[in-house]
Amino acid sequence: MKKDASSFFKTIQDQISAAVEEADGLASFKQDNWTREESSARGTTMDGGGGRSRVLEEGAVFERAGVNFSEVSGTLSAEMCEKLVSQKSSLPFYATGVSLVFHPLSPMIPTVHANFRYLEVGEKKWFGGGTDLTPYVLFKEDAQHFHKKLKESCDRHAVADYQAFKNACDKYFYLPHRKEHRGIGGIFFDYMGREDGENLEDIFHFVKDMAQGFNDCYSPIVAQRKDLPYGEKERDFQLLRRGRYVEFNLIHDRGTQFGLKTGGRTESILMSLPPLVSWKYNQQPEPDSNESKLLEVLSNPVEWLA
Amino acid sequence: MKKDASSFFKTIQDQISAAVEEADGLASFKQDNWTREESSARGTTMDGGGGRSRVLEEGAVFERAGVNFSEVSGTLSAEMCEKLVSQKSSLPFYATGVSLVFHPLSPMIPTVHANFRYLEVGEKKWFGGGTDLTPYVLFKEDAQHFHKKLKESCDRHAVADYQAFKNACDKYFYLPHRKEHRGIGGIFFDYMGREDGENLEDIFHFVKDMAQGFNDCYSPIVAQRKDLPYGEKERDFQLLRRGRYVEFNLIHDRGTQFGLKTGGRTESILMSLPPLVSWKYNQQPEPDSNESKLLEVLSNPVEWLA
Repeated sequence: MKKDASSFFKTIQDQISAAVEEADGLASFKQDNWTREESSARGTTMDGGGGRSRVLEEGAVFERAGVNFSEVSGTLSAEMCEKLVSQKSSLPFYATGVSLVFHPLSPMIPTVHANFRYLEVGEKKWFGGGTDLTPYVLFKEDAQHFHKKLKESCDRHAVADYQAFKNACDKYFYLPHRKEHRGIGGIFFDYMGREDGENLEDIFHFVKDMAQGFNDCYSPIVAQRKDLPYGEKERDFQLLRRGRYVEFNLIHDRGTQFGLKTGGRTESILMSLPPLVSWKYNQQPEPDSNESKLLEVLSNPVEWLA
Repeated sequence: MKKDASSFFKTIQDQISAAVEEADGLASFKQDNWTREESSARGTTMDGGGGRSRVLEEGAVFERAGVNFSEVSGTLSAEMCEKLVSQKSSLPFYATGVSLVFHPLSPMIPTVHANFRYLEVGEKKWFGGGTDLTPYVLFKEDAQHFHKKLKESCDRHAVADYQAFKNACDKYFYLPHRKEHRGIGGIFFDYMGREDGENLEDIFHFVKDMAQGFNDCYSPIVAQRKDLPYGEKERDFQLLRRGRYVEFNLIHDRGTQFGLKTGGRTESILMSLPPLVSWKYNQQPEPDSNESKLLEVLSNPVEWLA
């Protein structure tokens, strides 16, 4: 499974980077291959592995797009094993996955994030992942398209439950100090297969379907919105909202925290941060504006397919 | 002591805001008074209190300057009491203080942070605080001036130890995932008086001296640097370095974390974030450039008064 998963994730990185470059039309990805030396940063001992980080910056469509593939292994501390697999002893681990965040230049195009991963800790094996959309201007039909595609992928697999994954996504991408969700949601799943290893192959099929369907979820939205005109007002609002993205990733995101705390490659982990961001004191959108309509939806998650 | 401390901190807020407005010459502070309703967010029950938040934005010298005064009280969870006073029971607490961050527009002027606070938890009482400087272009004489003023304040008080506080500052304002310190340091002290309440008055004298001396530490640097010319290169580097400021405050800063997690006023807490920030993948300064000279100092703290 390790080999199948990691080779699949590499292929997905290729497919998705190709689609981004095509959509962008101007910039191309720079790739950094990195390898991990053994390290014993907080709770983990790595005994190798590495990754392929790809970043595209200052494109025509994407101000920054990052797609990471990684495959690492080593030994996990008893403390972390207790958290992950309820066993209070140090265990060998293996993790591979692909993770991406695209920050478009135009505020008319939403930011997207996706992650698909396979983990082994001791005898336990599982998949996790998901994808979610963060718009700066709300187009209902984009949110509906994104969720519809995700539901279709889920519906093709007995192991997947769109509604449960959609709810988990709304719950996960939430900023308690702002009482806001990060975006209009998507799906989020974790520990799939950990308790009952028997259907791991079925779960892998679902993850494959989901990852291969990613371009169909996002690319049509980019195509639809990339030529829309916008002004300073929309751009300013986008920069402010990107501040929330930073707040979520640095304060709450488990992947970011895990990566930074276990001594991962900082530049690859923080690739998810937007290229330009602003904070302004106590900014409140005007009533009935586009901005306040978006905030309404971020405060109260919507059933897009209802 | 509560009354003396909170009234002193209010006066300090006034003195420092007046100096900032004078130095800026264009913008003035907006003030928000806020009160806290009882809340039981994670580990704290507040039974009142509030604060005065002051923000100045888009000034001629300061792109953003925030000075907060607050005074809150309530009951602290057993878990937090164990951390703070090694007593595993829920106890009443009181906290008052003033906290500031100034982000100048010009990259030739350093960002400055300061905080002075008084706390009571059960029978224990203590002061904490400090101030530190984050330059974007290194002027050795600014760092020396800042540290010299701080050392003079410390040297006037038997309870204060410049070298110990300077080392604590270097240690605290550190980003392990970047292997960089946040700036060129300053002083940092905490729990002063907690174990031996007898010299609390002396400690208060020291804190007063330090807070009243703040303008003399920082204002001469602003005056010296504010008319220096700079270009896009310096501005770009400033925006990138501000990213590190955000990373420190959101990932590491105890005050920010404590505030956000106990349900403090988000807009007052995050006033410390810079108005405009950028992240760029794997940016490395040219050898022997001003940028690399600064990074050298941020990687290896300097004894500025040696």
